[in-house]
Amino acid sequence: MDTRPIGVFDSGLGGLTAVKELERLIPNENIIYFGDTGRVPYGTRGINTIKKYAVSDMRFLLSFNVKAIIIACGTVSSIAIDEVRRITDLPVIGVVEPTAKTAVEVSKTGKIGVIATSATISSGSFQKAISKLNPDAEVIARACPLFVPLVENGYFGRDCKLAQLAAHDYIDEFKGRIDTLILGCTHYPLLRGVIEDILPGVILVDSGFETAKTAVSLLSEQDLLNTSGKGSVHYYVSDQTSDFERLAGIFLEHPVNGMVDTVDIEKY
Amino acid sequence: MDTRPIGVFDSGLGGLTAVKELERLIPNENIIYFGDTGRVPYGTRGINTIKKYAVSDMRFLLSFNVKAIIIACGTVSSIAIDEVRRITDLPVIGVVEPTAKTAVEVSKTGKIGVIATSATISSGSFQKAISKLNPDAEVIARACPLFVPLVENGYFGRDCKLAQLAAHDYIDEFKGRIDTLILGCTHYPLLRGVIEDILPGVILVDSGFETAKTAVSLLSEQDLLNTSGKGSVHYYVSDQTSDFERLAGIFLEHPVNGMVDTVDIEKY
Repeated sequence: MDTRPIGVFDSGLGGLTAVKELERLIPNENIIYFGDTGRVPYGTRGINTIKKYAVSDMRFLLSFNVKAIIIACGTVSSIAIDEVRRITDLPVIGVVEPTAKTAVEVSKTGKIGVIATSATISSGSFQKAISKLNPDAEVIARACPLFVPLVENGYFGRDCKLAQLAAHDYIDEFKGRIDTLILGCTHYPLLRGVIEDILPGVILVDSGFETAKTAVSLLSEQDLLNTSGKGSVHYYVSDQTSDFERLAGIFLEHPVNGMVDTVDIEKY
Repeated sequence: MDTRPIGVFDSGLGGLTAVKELERLIPNENIIYFGDTGRVPYGTRGINTIKKYAVSDMRFLLSFNVKAIIIACGTVSSIAIDEVRRITDLPVIGVVEPTAKTAVEVSKTGKIGVIATSATISSGSFQKAISKLNPDAEVIARACPLFVPLVENGYFGRDCKLAQLAAHDYIDEFKGRIDTLILGCTHYPLLRGVIEDILPGVILVDSGFETAKTAVSLLSEQDLLNTSGKGSVHYYVSDQTSDFERLAGIFLEHPVNGMVDTVDIEKY
């Protein structure tokens, strides 16, 4: 048993897909969430910029005496996990392995699609993780650079025409070619309805959800869970709190007002 | 006559719409351009974040001993021009007044549309500048939060379906209601073809172009122009150079390879 909080970070709103599952699975835990809304998006930026941002995000979370770090960001998990692990001995859980593992397990045909940011797709992280688990798997990968701006600006409803058109442009090519699709950026599950309508019957593997489940198993194995009391989540962002509060409230289906503060992340 | 360079900055590619005109009008000048590609977009962020970024951009340009500053960014010109002017005695030219002036001059009906980022539209900067020049003008203003991500990701061609759909969503409401439309974000002229196809016959006023013209007049009046020699532009960005080089080359219609460097803007 360990009462220290768990640190979770993402470039913005996406990591809430992990938080939502953590709240359900381990309601006793205190969680410190950081969303880098002043510098989002990450996945269209260069490798050095992503590494620099990831390290400062980590330094900020480490200032809370956390017991583990969840990188609830596909881009950082793909590009900068080594940099992040270099600055701490704490358990660090990224999204790539948990998500690839589930995709390989649920796919019947071994034909797996991956959608993620440009940086993640270029890194080949999911492709490598899948082929390590199943060398016969066939992977089709596609970058969707506009999905994060769409989500961060609130264009993620199932009926949103802009989201639909962007999704058609990116994922029509998967039709009939896969039975499983990895949502390799934690923002993308917010577009789940739009994606399901284009690829009915395809199993969507949610990287935020899978990572939360893996983190809970790992904390449990290491006897790091907080088994008593009522936990809470405190949110920090690097831009103003209002937009985050509004969109996070919609996504989490409960208000987060008063639980969000701004931090000057460039100081870390 | 003054041989010092001119400093120009924007959140990313947009300010190139001013640079293109400066290159044509004053080819003798040396220009230092900064595009904050590591922190773009600005116009969907909060006021304090925009002010902080603008001040660091300015500090960087001031390190080059420039003779004047052109804020080739609608968002910074609308939100942070006072902060920027507070840290220098040099001439500082923003996009709002020059663009509003031309719009008022060319509009026959006084019915003027403004499209810009969320932060710019919320600030009311263009609306105020227009009504100061023509109190009878009727202004319709609309924020287009996805236009900057579209442009920065290369979705700006006349035939780009995503750009077309976003543009319909934002500007269909102007049809038949205005004779002049201010492109109040310097990124938007890259979408000129798409916008023209939706609003044929409407005069589009390009904020980057107008600001460049005004800057040249002002420098000329103050005898600050460089009247001899062949000028050049050096570009600095806060992310990797490759994407900027590629897109800037397309937009400027000449290569900029080898003329772009990366700077760690968070140090300024």
